[in-house]
Amino acid sequence: MADPLQFYFDFSSPYGYFASEKIDALAARYDRQVIWKPFLLGVVFKETGAAPLTEIPLKSRYFLRDFARSARFMDVPFNQPKTFPLPTQHAARAFYWLDDKDPALARAFAQATLRAYFVDGVDISEQAVVQEIAVAQSPVIDRDALAAALAGAEVKERLKEECREAINKGVFGSPFVFVDEEPFFGADRLPQVERWLKEKSF
Amino acid sequence: MADPLQFYFDFSSPYGYFASEKIDALAARYDRQVIWKPFLLGVVFKETGAAPLTEIPLKSRYFLRDFARSARFMDVPFNQPKTFPLPTQHAARAFYWLDDKDPALARAFAQATLRAYFVDGVDISEQAVVQEIAVAQSPVIDRDALAAALAGAEVKERLKEECREAINKGVFGSPFVFVDEEPFFGADRLPQVERWLKEKSF
Repeated sequence: MADPLQFYFDFSSPYGYFASEKIDALAARYDRQVIWKPFLLGVVFKETGAAPLTEIPLKSRYFLRDFARSARFMDVPFNQPKTFPLPTQHAARAFYWLDDKDPALARAFAQATLRAYFVDGVDISEQAVVQEIAVAQSPVIDRDALAAALAGAEVKERLKEECREAINKGVFGSPFVFVDEEPFFGADRLPQVERWLKEKSF
Repeated sequence: MADPLQFYFDFSSPYGYFASEKIDALAARYDRQVIWKPFLLGVVFKETGAAPLTEIPLKSRYFLRDFARSARFMDVPFNQPKTFPLPTQHAARAFYWLDDKDPALARAFAQATLRAYFVDGVDISEQAVVQEIAVAQSPVIDRDALAAALAGAEVKERLKEECREAINKGVFGSPFVFVDEEPFFGADRLPQVERWLKEKSF
């Protein structure tokens, strides 16, 4: 089997969420797997001087409209969260803690967290909420161990490393997909990702 | 016939160029016409604090790659111009001067100018080059009258007005397409434009 795709996303990125609902099935059609890599857009924005799409007055109205329209276009359930964007470090740290134990479990946690935020409007910036979603995925997840991990230095350093690696790879937004070494930015690049997977390049 | 689409673009925007090669035929499939509206990205960027995509180090390498890949994906001939981006006020002013005489002629001028820049690498920031392209479109175009117009205040004020109108309509990048009042930003939104034209909304 060819190398897995790498899928970078921030838990508060609508376009990252839309891509998350499609990327595994897309890759599977070409016998590929996907490594999910949450990162913090805020850390990347410090590198590029960028700001969240909805904090720029001329862009805010458009992107709120485009989020909802793109969700309908891609047939993904979506309700614009009232608190948007929000801090996602607890979700990203919990993801990597789970990922080291069981990548499939981490994936299930990520999908549940994204849907909780972008469908049900749950405030996923809260550590207690993140823990709740995590333990709901499997009886093997120990709530106290996760709480202790989230309070410790190790997962914080791990997320920092992942953000540094993302920046080193040229990631400047969410979602960002790598097929072998080819970079694709944006949920709207999934048709190009598909053609790349089909033709190896174009 | 339903209202025409409005197609906003800057003459030095690759994604604007890609859309320019598709938008008329796309609209025609749904019995629509297109009003072309060149504007100056630099004027809009002053409103949003944005910078050209290739002036941000982390983004530059990606977008140069994405320009070329997106051109191949959309099957549009493209060679990355060495001087990029460049000032486009002469081209935009010549467009509106021609547009007031004959919109079809202005359209032909715009397509020829975009291809000169994005296929043949011609420096379209030069007024003499713009004039050359314009007179090549039709024997009715008077080179001296165009030169005089480009030196005068009227077309300058006209372009300023068009830029103000663009900002008032929420245009913050190139290309920007309006179908009735629905705004679409980016060449990658053409599939959404098509679905909107087909279904009236979605």
